[in-house]
Amino acid sequence: MAELFKALTVEEARLAFASYLPIKKPPEELPLLESIGRRLATEVRAAEDVPGFDRSTVDGYAVRARDTYGATEGLPSYVDISGEVLMGQAPGGRIGTGQAWRIATGGMLPLGADAVVMVEYTELLEDSVIGITRPVAPGENIIRRGEDITSGEIALPAGHRIRPQDLGMLSSIGIPRVEVVAQYKVGIISTGDELVAPYECPAPGQVRDINSYTLAGAVIACGGEPKLYDIIRDEDDLLKNMLERALEENDLILLSGGSSVGTRDVAARVIELFGKPGILFHGLSIKPGKPTIGAMVKNRPVFGLPGHPASAMVVFDLMVAPLIRSGDYSNSNKESLTEFPLRAEITRNLHSAAGREDFIRVRLVNQSGRLLADPVLGKSGLIKTMVKADGLAYIPAGKEGVEAGESVDVKLI
Amino acid sequence: MAELFKALTVEEARLAFASYLPIKKPPEELPLLESIGRRLATEVRAAEDVPGFDRSTVDGYAVRARDTYGATEGLPSYVDISGEVLMGQAPGGRIGTGQAWRIATGGMLPLGADAVVMVEYTELLEDSVIGITRPVAPGENIIRRGEDITSGEIALPAGHRIRPQDLGMLSSIGIPRVEVVAQYKVGIISTGDELVAPYECPAPGQVRDINSYTLAGAVIACGGEPKLYDIIRDEDDLLKNMLERALEENDLILLSGGSSVGTRDVAARVIELFGKPGILFHGLSIKPGKPTIGAMVKNRPVFGLPGHPASAMVVFDLMVAPLIRSGDYSNSNKESLTEFPLRAEITRNLHSAAGREDFIRVRLVNQSGRLLADPVLGKSGLIKTMVKADGLAYIPAGKEGVEAGESVDVKLI
Repeated sequence: MAELFKALTVEEARLAFASYLPIKKPPEELPLLESIGRRLATEVRAAEDVPGFDRSTVDGYAVRARDTYGATEGLPSYVDISGEVLMGQAPGGRIGTGQAWRIATGGMLPLGADAVVMVEYTELLEDSVIGITRPVAPGENIIRRGEDITSGEIALPAGHRIRPQDLGMLSSIGIPRVEVVAQYKVGIISTGDELVAPYECPAPGQVRDINSYTLAGAVIACGGEPKLYDIIRDEDDLLKNMLERALEENDLILLSGGSSVGTRDVAARVIELFGKPGILFHGLSIKPGKPTIGAMVKNRPVFGLPGHPASAMVVFDLMVAPLIRSGDYSNSNKESLTEFPLRAEITRNLHSAAGREDFIRVRLVNQSGRLLADPVLGKSGLIKTMVKADGLAYIPAGKEGVEAGESVDVKLI
Repeated sequence: MAELFKALTVEEARLAFASYLPIKKPPEELPLLESIGRRLATEVRAAEDVPGFDRSTVDGYAVRARDTYGATEGLPSYVDISGEVLMGQAPGGRIGTGQAWRIATGGMLPLGADAVVMVEYTELLEDSVIGITRPVAPGENIIRRGEDITSGEIALPAGHRIRPQDLGMLSSIGIPRVEVVAQYKVGIISTGDELVAPYECPAPGQVRDINSYTLAGAVIACGGEPKLYDIIRDEDDLLKNMLERALEENDLILLSGGSSVGTRDVAARVIELFGKPGILFHGLSIKPGKPTIGAMVKNRPVFGLPGHPASAMVVFDLMVAPLIRSGDYSNSNKESLTEFPLRAEITRNLHSAAGREDFIRVRLVNQSGRLLADPVLGKSGLIKTMVKADGLAYIPAGKEGVEAGESVDVKLI
């Protein structure tokens, strides 16, 4: 079965899914504080100006700027204090020529005023007269009405991932609830005659299932909702029934099995039973992670992940995580700017086959300001290699390895 | 009041808190899938070897390595197939000299076998004899009993932040629940005569509270539990009562007010009413974020944050976020390796006062592989400057600015 398929690069594999994406999902409405990290389903527009009036950005005196022109410490401009702005209230008057009102940061400018002089650049002569020792230009020390956002303007575009500051923007325009894209549900089916659940005691020849909890945690970490199914034996009928059920209950399915040819053949056979499009690729030209199946079954992405824990996580990270975060592999979002955001010096020579992308588990060490990436040695079948690693270093397909001291791109894991 | 205090650097401000940290918190027990992102309260040790037996990492034949020495394609070593390992079962026999058992990836090695030959390097001659075309060394293609973790070994240390792969490790050693440090509760008190809640309609002179929702979102994003109190007026008695209540209900308090001297004076006066140690610093030598108060009140950190939204977020990020994540400013954790992890080229000249740390809001742009940091211009009183920014670029205290094209360290926000 595998022989019919050529191993694809990550980019080709993503492209193979392109025409079936994004994964559709109806929006849901959430209060602001529950929306952190979620994606807006629809754009949000401001229905009013923020702020709704010209505000001072300093403590001082609201003035007409032209009354301050030419002011110096030696020859201050003198103006009369004719009022005071009370916080949270509209000033009940108008500033005339040669007049000033006391105002605090955030206060509303009185009519007639077009600038604020900082208290530091004034001297109080008597109770009601100040000398201004430095001129201000019109608009100085002011936030204009609508300067933060104007009525009708787009505050946040559809698809935007909500961050803390976005809640600030939404609060400012009086929006207490937002429509966000619902979380993707991810079904995780573990197969393997040798696997038992983490709460069970393995008999000789058996091991506890490592991958399904790792994957479930990874689904949560990128904002999805995992659903763990019972471990089943590597048999076509059992897997077919379980997959059928999982397809009804989820938006995306992960098949996590052993790394044996037998396990992979069961997965491939069962996927093909569901008809077209079925398997899109069987094999990725990456290390670790080669024995991966990508498929579309009943309009849902299905991945057959490698059995080795480190391999399964690498493939998850490259192929599954973007879908759970954004529903597709689009490069338009900001996350993709920085898929491997850190630069670090690799601490030893590593070989890599040409034409293959390598993902090296590394420990990060800060050596007096230099970030070092120290490869974690060990088989990809060992979960401890991922536990000891802080990140994955990337060796592109075009390179045949890296030399100690060379810079590599790293992502945290 | 502020005049009595010298503005501190971020490092000095963190040091001022050092003797009062970490913030204590009793542990709580959680099932694995709920523990993602939390910190282990106690170390976890393995109570058994994983795997519990020698396993094959490939599909092939379990053999005695010495039976394969000298094997080549031209002159294969011939061995008898004397059994087959069934997945999930202990093999019911022993391998003798010149014998091999069929075995799949993950299968348990029969007694007597010390290596596995990959099926690719064998040729089946008749039903029960294979030719081996490449020698294997003892231990080759095997994961040894206890190679992932050995009984008694520390699987994860206390304080470790739980990642997906850590769930895999915990599953493998049969630990379905873990003790984690409870989330810090963070009380957010907003003061200001001009502020109304996001769901209210501001009258002239009033604005909706931007900072408390921004801060609450930031608390959630770093793993804390925010509690928003009603907005109160800038009056000593009101703030004193509210702070008293918030101190009883939280581990850490944020006072978010306007940027006026009056607002800051109220906060400082009220904090001092609670006695020693009280205010630890009043003013940070950073931009934005200077007008910050740091205090210990009733054994809890209390921060008086600047009123300008961008300033409040920068201070939160530097001074509050580490406490919510880890309970202290310790540099031992991996997060601090990478406080400003990205390197980008700044796109314009920026001035910075010597002796002051500057945090520049930047948009990140990927220009054919080069990461550019484009400063977002605008007053720190505008929340839109934070909404438009993807990150903060750092200019250290020793520098008096950066030139266009120079590399800067950036963190995502």
